[in-house]
Amino acid sequence: MTDQLDSETRIQDDDHHALKLWLRLLTCTNLVQGHLRQQLRESFDSTLPRFDLLAQLDRHPEKLRMGELTKLMMVSAGNVTGLVTQLEKEGLVKRTPMKTDRRTFLVGLTKKGKKHFDTMALDHESWVVNMFSGMDAEQQDELMNDLLALKKSVKATRRTIES
Amino acid sequence: MTDQLDSETRIQDDDHHALKLWLRLLTCTNLVQGHLRQQLRESFDSTLPRFDLLAQLDRHPEKLRMGELTKLMMVSAGNVTGLVTQLEKEGLVKRTPMKTDRRTFLVGLTKKGKKHFDTMALDHESWVVNMFSGMDAEQQDELMNDLLALKKSVKATRRTIES
Repeated sequence: MTDQLDSETRIQDDDHHALKLWLRLLTCTNLVQGHLRQQLRESFDSTLPRFDLLAQLDRHPEKLRMGELTKLMMVSAGNVTGLVTQLEKEGLVKRTPMKTDRRTFLVGLTKKGKKHFDTMALDHESWVVNMFSGMDAEQQDELMNDLLALKKSVKATRRTIES
Repeated sequence: MTDQLDSETRIQDDDHHALKLWLRLLTCTNLVQGHLRQQLRESFDSTLPRFDLLAQLDRHPEKLRMGELTKLMMVSAGNVTGLVTQLEKEGLVKRTPMKTDRRTFLVGLTKKGKKHFDTMALDHESWVVNMFSGMDAEQQDELMNDLLALKKSVKATRRTIES
């Protein structure tokens, strides 16, 4: 993690306001993610895709098919199948065949995996809380609302393009 | 690009406010990035790492060393060297040895690469402007300011941890 991840200084003067906003958004995401990567590595010798994958399984105790899991990932993981294979070797996740279709496998957390994830999740949350702690409650609420407006705006654009 | 990228629905009730905010930020970034990926593919048969790499070279007409280029990338590109090799084959970038150290190479845009990038950059900007167009000017300014507050907050956290 170096300050070179803060790439806003590279924005040219003639760039449009929305473009500056997008690059600032991306910069913030990269800063937070870089910090989380570093912390996961130092505290748990782990990675963001590993954490993300375990988090998705934790949120879906009903277990997930490979395809569902891949779609739910919030950080790019490259090879999700390889990641699952590795986590299964470590006893953190388990693949079981579906009852209705034994060629399809469901992925779920093992007890050990759940325990491992819960420990990481506690620290992960405290790192996030810490990173946002320089913003007061009002700023955080404002950011929450403005990001919601952005989400709606992006989704509306997509509908326009796709129709 | 499906709505499954919008993963906020998965957030559990007991998650902390800052965690919700972070996941919303990540969701927004993923939505915008997903949209840009799709547009780059459909309009230019290109990718976000390719666009990002050309954009960094465009912003540094003095040319960049491989290591500098890698650090400047705003999206994860996996293998930057492989990307440069591919873009050089297509005549879009060129590697030249440094005068002071002929074992070190500088990467820069070719004329063809600059022209190609300029065309993409125009469309890229219009896509971004379009995605943010559902927000009024006041919301955009607010978001810009709140993201600046977040950036400062994250950087302050990092200093605390590193010291």
